Amino acid sequence: MTDTGFCLWFTGLSGAGKSTIANLVVDELRRRGHRVELLDGDEVREHLSKGLGFSKEDRDTNIRRIGFVASLLARNGVVAVTAAISPYRAVREEVRGWIERFVEIHVATPLEECEARDVKGLYAKARAGEIPEFTGVSDPYEPPAHPEIRVETSGRTPAESAAEVVAWLERAGLSPPR
Amino acid sequence: MTDTGFCLWFTGLSGAGKSTIANLVVDELRRRGHRVELLDGDEVREHLSKGLGFSKEDRDTNIRRIGFVASLLARNGVVAVTAAISPYRAVREEVRGWIERFVEIHVATPLEECEARDVKGLYAKARAGEIPEFTGVSDPYEPPAHPEIRVETSGRTPAESAAEVVAWLERAGLSPPR
Repeated sequence: MTDTGFCLWFTGLSGAGKSTIANLVVDELRRRGHRVELLDGDEVREHLSKGLGFSKEDRDTNIRRIGFVASLLARNGVVAVTAAISPYRAVREEVRGWIERFVEIHVATPLEECEARDVKGLYAKARAGEIPEFTGVSDPYEPPAHPEIRVETSGRTPAESAAEVVAWLERAGLSPPR
Repeated sequence: MTDTGFCLWFTGLSGAGKSTIANLVVDELRRRGHRVELLDGDEVREHLSKGLGFSKEDRDTNIRRIGFVASLLARNGVVAVTAAISPYRAVREEVRGWIERFVEIHVATPLEECEARDVKGLYAKARAGEIPEFTGVSDPYEPPAHPEIRVETSGRTPAESAAEVVAWLERAGLSPPR
């Protein structure tokens, strides 16, 4: 078992590929003997933030809750992986201050590409006015200024993007190569 | 490092001694090499449940959130220790169903004794009607029918009560003696 806890904080637009890439990274880290917990945006909303909406205040509260849980896991030797949109820079920086080894990963798929894929049909609904406060359409997304990792997904497979993240962790000494 | 995660779920009235005993157990388990996280009722309310009140519904939501976080920790090899009043039996049983090794510890200090001590002055306020829905006074406490451990604190020091808990964990094979 590898005993150093840290946090992989994925951020990016809806449909950018955060969960897909995060899941592949999780699989690889488990193969390497890390204890890993994935805190997915939707699951956490169900368990920790039911009743919260998508105003800036409610989004920030949701992100702080995810950050609190991630900090508990990371300080106990677990790799906490989060994959919520987390659109606001200030609260991401706040959470960074709580966690010793915090790795911010910007999944930088351009809006046009997320919208063209529209896997869940959410962008179409947002454009039709059926979803208010939709990040990238009617609510801002503030990209990280200095993320530890910036993943450009265009023209790359999710496996290639995940491999970039794992290679970064190797170089940073957080996950020794097998 | 000891790698088996489990949950120590303390329950009992306000002022029963839950946090005091839990803290002593936490200290001893850390000395033995366990990774341990204490989820105190007040701290969790601040970080996960701000805005929730003390109606049955809100209390149950708060307990489910503590239980969710405890389950994440326990399944990753951490000893999750909770010390919230958690007055309702049904939601405690619900949380038990989420966690493989769940140890319910009833700190069974009688109401009269909690009220006589009244460390935080809360019972006096509750009797004066200044705190509505106060467990044991104006809101029910449902003691566990079959807790793994029942701690009778009357005439015992907190250290003696904590030692009882640790001895139980030794017998259960969850914490080998030093």
